[in-house]
Amino acid sequence: MELWFKEEQTPHLGIVLRVKETLLRKRSGFQDIAVLDTLQYGRALVLDGIIQTTEGDEFAYHEMLVHVPLLTHPEPRRVLIVGGGDGGAVREVLRHPQVESVFLVEIDREVVEASRRFLPGLSCALDDPRVTVVYQDGAEFVAGAQGEFDVILVDSTDPVGPAVPLFRGPFYSAVARALRPDGLVVAQTESPFVNGPVISQVFGEVRQRFPVARVYLACVPTYPGGMWTFTLGSLRYDPLGPDTGLGRGRPVPSGLRYYSAQIHAAAFALPPFVAPLLGPGP
Amino acid sequence: MELWFKEEQTPHLGIVLRVKETLLRKRSGFQDIAVLDTLQYGRALVLDGIIQTTEGDEFAYHEMLVHVPLLTHPEPRRVLIVGGGDGGAVREVLRHPQVESVFLVEIDREVVEASRRFLPGLSCALDDPRVTVVYQDGAEFVAGAQGEFDVILVDSTDPVGPAVPLFRGPFYSAVARALRPDGLVVAQTESPFVNGPVISQVFGEVRQRFPVARVYLACVPTYPGGMWTFTLGSLRYDPLGPDTGLGRGRPVPSGLRYYSAQIHAAAFALPPFVAPLLGPGP
Repeated sequence: MELWFKEEQTPHLGIVLRVKETLLRKRSGFQDIAVLDTLQYGRALVLDGIIQTTEGDEFAYHEMLVHVPLLTHPEPRRVLIVGGGDGGAVREVLRHPQVESVFLVEIDREVVEASRRFLPGLSCALDDPRVTVVYQDGAEFVAGAQGEFDVILVDSTDPVGPAVPLFRGPFYSAVARALRPDGLVVAQTESPFVNGPVISQVFGEVRQRFPVARVYLACVPTYPGGMWTFTLGSLRYDPLGPDTGLGRGRPVPSGLRYYSAQIHAAAFALPPFVAPLLGPGP
Repeated sequence: MELWFKEEQTPHLGIVLRVKETLLRKRSGFQDIAVLDTLQYGRALVLDGIIQTTEGDEFAYHEMLVHVPLLTHPEPRRVLIVGGGDGGAVREVLRHPQVESVFLVEIDREVVEASRRFLPGLSCALDDPRVTVVYQDGAEFVAGAQGEFDVILVDSTDPVGPAVPLFRGPFYSAVARALRPDGLVVAQTESPFVNGPVISQVFGEVRQRFPVARVYLACVPTYPGGMWTFTLGSLRYDPLGPDTGLGRGRPVPSGLRYYSAQIHAAAFALPPFVAPLLGPGP
């Protein structure tokens, strides 16, 4: 028997992955949660039918979400992750010895439990003493914070259901308030090939609130369109400027598979078809 | 009714595209040829069940295949394209006013005819007086050429069937002979996420025969893994050096959607997981 999982990434496009075994299938208070063991990319976390991450390509997404901002900030001590219940972003954040505390704010406790049970390669750092896991709506948590974080990472699902507010203006106002005066935020903002309007929307909100606003790219095979964007808003440091962590000579963590100092710079080179999504210059 | 095309990109991974209409389905002497009108990416050329190119993302592939070498060579006058019967590479080559002649050597006349009929946005330049279309095996054609070309582009199908020799050492020996003494070659060499051994194989062959050997990347959504590699072998000019066309100030053609001078440089930044595919240093 051949068992295939299909994700309809848009109404007209999908990815199919051959499945060895369904390790978990349940409904939480928020969503349908599945963990599939796929032959191509190893175990995959699937929420409401949408692949969040797989063992085979999560390194591309998590390293680029995390190390670009953590090597932009010269001294990232206190980090907040909104979403990211699988733990992959936490694992990458803790590779930086400067980090003293990480708050993971995940709305759905059962996502964290699924990852602890079935994705140990991602969830392995969740028990580190520097980590606090909070089960709360990310937008609510951020609204209650004031000048506390050096870096905020928005590791959300797609802009449907509970994640919708995370792509809107009021959230980015709250993020700017929750950051220390030289803090920065990075959010995953979907594919320029198939979700252009999301990029335009978030970049517009970020640019209104942060003196430095940039988009950068990575290839993530299991996400629609392959090419993925991250939107960065910074209150002080420019990720391509001289006063970043990288620029001041902080070393890149060892053992990375996607991020490097060269990739850091290269990721900000945007193909001409992406640039118009960012709207007219400021 | 919903009609879906599925390409099994590997035995364990596939892409599915919703189809409005099957415009062409036939068997040539070499392969099964189809043109599908898809809702996500427009018309798609499908050979033996494998997507070769779509109207929606062909610009990424063709611009990166062509403009990196054509802006590396300072004065590309005579260009050979092996494969590429859809015409997209020819269209991009002719954006460079230095080009005096382009030879397109395609094994299957019916691919060219299908593209002329159904993919006018790709085949539009095939009637340009600078273009000669030759229906012949590409490896045979190259074996018969001596010091004739400034740039050779290997725009092949995947390494199965008639394309297999185009990924082997003897072909690259013939390519090196077919080039002028300062010529260069670029070949499409598949995805580092799912076809690593192909990259290792071709890069190894190219490095043995060319003083400059490099791999660069682009994101092409309809190709497996999203991230695509191109392998460049050059007898003189380094694509990142100062004496390239770009370095000497030749302008980038206008109207491009993927390639830019920034992308040219950025594309050679390889994530650490790709570097080991290139083997130990020379």
